Amino acid sequence: MVDDAAITALRALLGDRLSTGASDLALHGRSEGVFQDMPPDAVAYPCATGEVAAILRICAEHGVPVVGWGAGTSLEGHALAPRGGVTVDFSRMDRVLRVAQEDMYAVVQPGVTREALNTELRATGLFFPVDPGANASLGGMASTRASGTTAVRYGTMRANVLALEVVLADGRVIRTGSAAPKSSTGYDLTALFVGAEGTLGLITELTLRLQGQPEAISAATCAFPDMAAAVAAVTATIQSGIPMARIEFLDAAFAAIFNRQSNASLPEAPHLMVEFHGSARGVAEQAEAFGEIVAEAGGSDFRWALRAEDRAALWKMRHNAYYTARALYPGTDPLTTDVCVPISCLAQAVEETAAEIAASGIPGPILGHVGDGNFHALLMPRKGDRDDWARAKALAAAMAERALRLGGTVSGEHGIGMGKTGYMQAEHGAGWAVMSQVKRALDPNGILNPGKLLSGD
Amino acid sequence: MVDDAAITALRALLGDRLSTGASDLALHGRSEGVFQDMPPDAVAYPCATGEVAAILRICAEHGVPVVGWGAGTSLEGHALAPRGGVTVDFSRMDRVLRVAQEDMYAVVQPGVTREALNTELRATGLFFPVDPGANASLGGMASTRASGTTAVRYGTMRANVLALEVVLADGRVIRTGSAAPKSSTGYDLTALFVGAEGTLGLITELTLRLQGQPEAISAATCAFPDMAAAVAAVTATIQSGIPMARIEFLDAAFAAIFNRQSNASLPEAPHLMVEFHGSARGVAEQAEAFGEIVAEAGGSDFRWALRAEDRAALWKMRHNAYYTARALYPGTDPLTTDVCVPISCLAQAVEETAAEIAASGIPGPILGHVGDGNFHALLMPRKGDRDDWARAKALAAAMAERALRLGGTVSGEHGIGMGKTGYMQAEHGAGWAVMSQVKRALDPNGILNPGKLLSGD
Repeated sequence: MVDDAAITALRALLGDRLSTGASDLALHGRSEGVFQDMPPDAVAYPCATGEVAAILRICAEHGVPVVGWGAGTSLEGHALAPRGGVTVDFSRMDRVLRVAQEDMYAVVQPGVTREALNTELRATGLFFPVDPGANASLGGMASTRASGTTAVRYGTMRANVLALEVVLADGRVIRTGSAAPKSSTGYDLTALFVGAEGTLGLITELTLRLQGQPEAISAATCAFPDMAAAVAAVTATIQSGIPMARIEFLDAAFAAIFNRQSNASLPEAPHLMVEFHGSARGVAEQAEAFGEIVAEAGGSDFRWALRAEDRAALWKMRHNAYYTARALYPGTDPLTTDVCVPISCLAQAVEETAAEIAASGIPGPILGHVGDGNFHALLMPRKGDRDDWARAKALAAAMAERALRLGGTVSGEHGIGMGKTGYMQAEHGAGWAVMSQVKRALDPNGILNPGKLLSGD
Repeated sequence: MVDDAAITALRALLGDRLSTGASDLALHGRSEGVFQDMPPDAVAYPCATGEVAAILRICAEHGVPVVGWGAGTSLEGHALAPRGGVTVDFSRMDRVLRVAQEDMYAVVQPGVTREALNTELRATGLFFPVDPGANASLGGMASTRASGTTAVRYGTMRANVLALEVVLADGRVIRTGSAAPKSSTGYDLTALFVGAEGTLGLITELTLRLQGQPEAISAATCAFPDMAAAVAAVTATIQSGIPMARIEFLDAAFAAIFNRQSNASLPEAPHLMVEFHGSARGVAEQAEAFGEIVAEAGGSDFRWALRAEDRAALWKMRHNAYYTARALYPGTDPLTTDVCVPISCLAQAVEETAAEIAASGIPGPILGHVGDGNFHALLMPRKGDRDDWARAKALAAAMAERALRLGGTVSGEHGIGMGKTGYMQAEHGAGWAVMSQVKRALDPNGILNPGKLLSGD
């Protein structure tokens, strides 16, 4: 519990932008993942970096846990408050501060969502490419090193955050990086905070790399006789060096889900959904090269989405896959997995996963950002059925262990949060303890997002 | 001085692979930069990670400084031993351990040079793109976050190191990253060690991202009436999104140097040297688009190097620029600068620099990786002339201060080492102290490369 003196000090600072109302606490104690509710003791709504620094100083003085909150779209419980404390909700720090068109970057506050930024950029000819599906906040995306459908071409948040402003556990405000395209002046603190899940500091400003809107875009879906053929086409496409902007896999179950959701009339077979960016000639050349690989792999039913609205519908359908699947399996409690393997092992990883899911009797459609070797299964145990739940957990564990065995990682993009700390020792060995050493150096009292990512803090 | 017990223990470990011979110490006490010689007390030549760990354990026990040594090509004194101690020379850890062709990565020991790796890759259709000019060791390139001519297309070492094996100050061996293309499992320790200049650990193995050899390559030089026109062409090219593989600037003085060096018969005017990678059609399209920009900017004398041997000669000339310039200004002691600014400020930064150099009376040809906003001046004060030296230092300081004023960084690629710690507070503010906190957490006794990058350690 947070002591009264801390609440009094925070209220003096924030007035009615400190909330202890039951509904607000409940809202900030929920997640989209499989975790029980863990509400904070208070929710703070700062408007500026100086307020975040003051909140941190008060919380440091009173030993109060501090949890950052963006859009609440994490699947691994990143923004839950297992030890109570203060949740810092960045929804009032949602301004695009600057768009540097010539230098192709934007400076934003952490509460700006990726869709809001792209709406703001519409007239500039630029866009922010990282697209995890959910309309996440950019502060949250940086904190979890998010990626999604376009990382195969434009990289993850790791590649697209140029600089940060961060408030540390003791209230110090630092700036990392610069607006220059590269630098070799000391430790890469930007990269240290990207993916730190709010355990080392709270991000209060981001400088993000932008991309020029491509002159031409085309997108398509194509069906394959089986999963092996689809994955073989992915591997061949990546190895051939075609600069895919998106290359997404979905299995037959997801094709059926899309048909139910959007009357997409897809053949109920494994599919790839792809997008090409470039000059008009370049896009045509890429599509031709990809078409040859698809034909070679036995793919068919090539459907082009040439108009912008058709492409938007296509990717909206893809982005809603998670929510649609949940709705189509009523009475279940989804467990969403996330693994990433070297591309040469993708076929083995996906096929073994599919076989295990089929044998388990639990619905578990598979989809993924396969150009990166990253895929998910949406495991659907029946709500309250302990046996189902145990089997779903065992399936997820088998996927994670297989990913490690194949030289991959237990999370390509969802992060660790509360859900995957159990795999950290297996993935990082002695490196996990090094993370704790860095954590203790910057947050000796462990007030920043306790119970996440690290061991026993 | 290193105590005898430490030397005895190291000799028991390494036998005649521990050298205390005068010539060996002298060789490892020199740098290519402007620093006085600072030899270590001993040089160790480990053959394996286990030996590096044992060296670190001995040095930790006896409080002996440890300095990593790759190819000795640093310009900022990274591998000097200002407090003596043991220099760990990685020349015997120079094996390419694995080339994963399908997954497009290579696992190498730190003593492999970039040219040696590319020779090894020749038959695979793959190459390692990062090219700082010098034939540096890959361990050194990772440690200084090197970049060079191709970073505009393929990124710096930051983007091209997938995973590392690192020996920490206490001898622990950790592995960071994985062979998967991306991951979001905890702190990005790979990025923390890349650019840490050997102050946090010694890199003993690197997993490097490889690229497919482009189907077509073409390269060209073109001349411009003045510096402003050349830089305007660069800015327009980058902003137009042409995926340049290389875009290098050199001023009229460097064109003259190249003519002396290689009978290049270039007009003695500012030049761009460019290279295009892609499909045959793609390269033609890029070259056409670039040609239009050059014409618009008043460029001329477009000379194509279409054959592989002509391109090799072109880039060899570029890579030898530093050494040639030194040879052409006998009796001088070069001070090589390195700054990087947002591309929109490049023209201002280069022109103000050129004007200041002209006013100083000191020769200072300018060249740079301008697609990244990164450029160098090779300042040539007369050897032993204190007044010249003071003016050269003042010019370099003005360049660094201007870069910071324009939102850039005091080093795009050379790093901090011993040469640029004086600018760290100005560039990073409170962030520099955070670097020291991380340093103390991982190397509490400060034995790893003391006197570099950090403040007063």
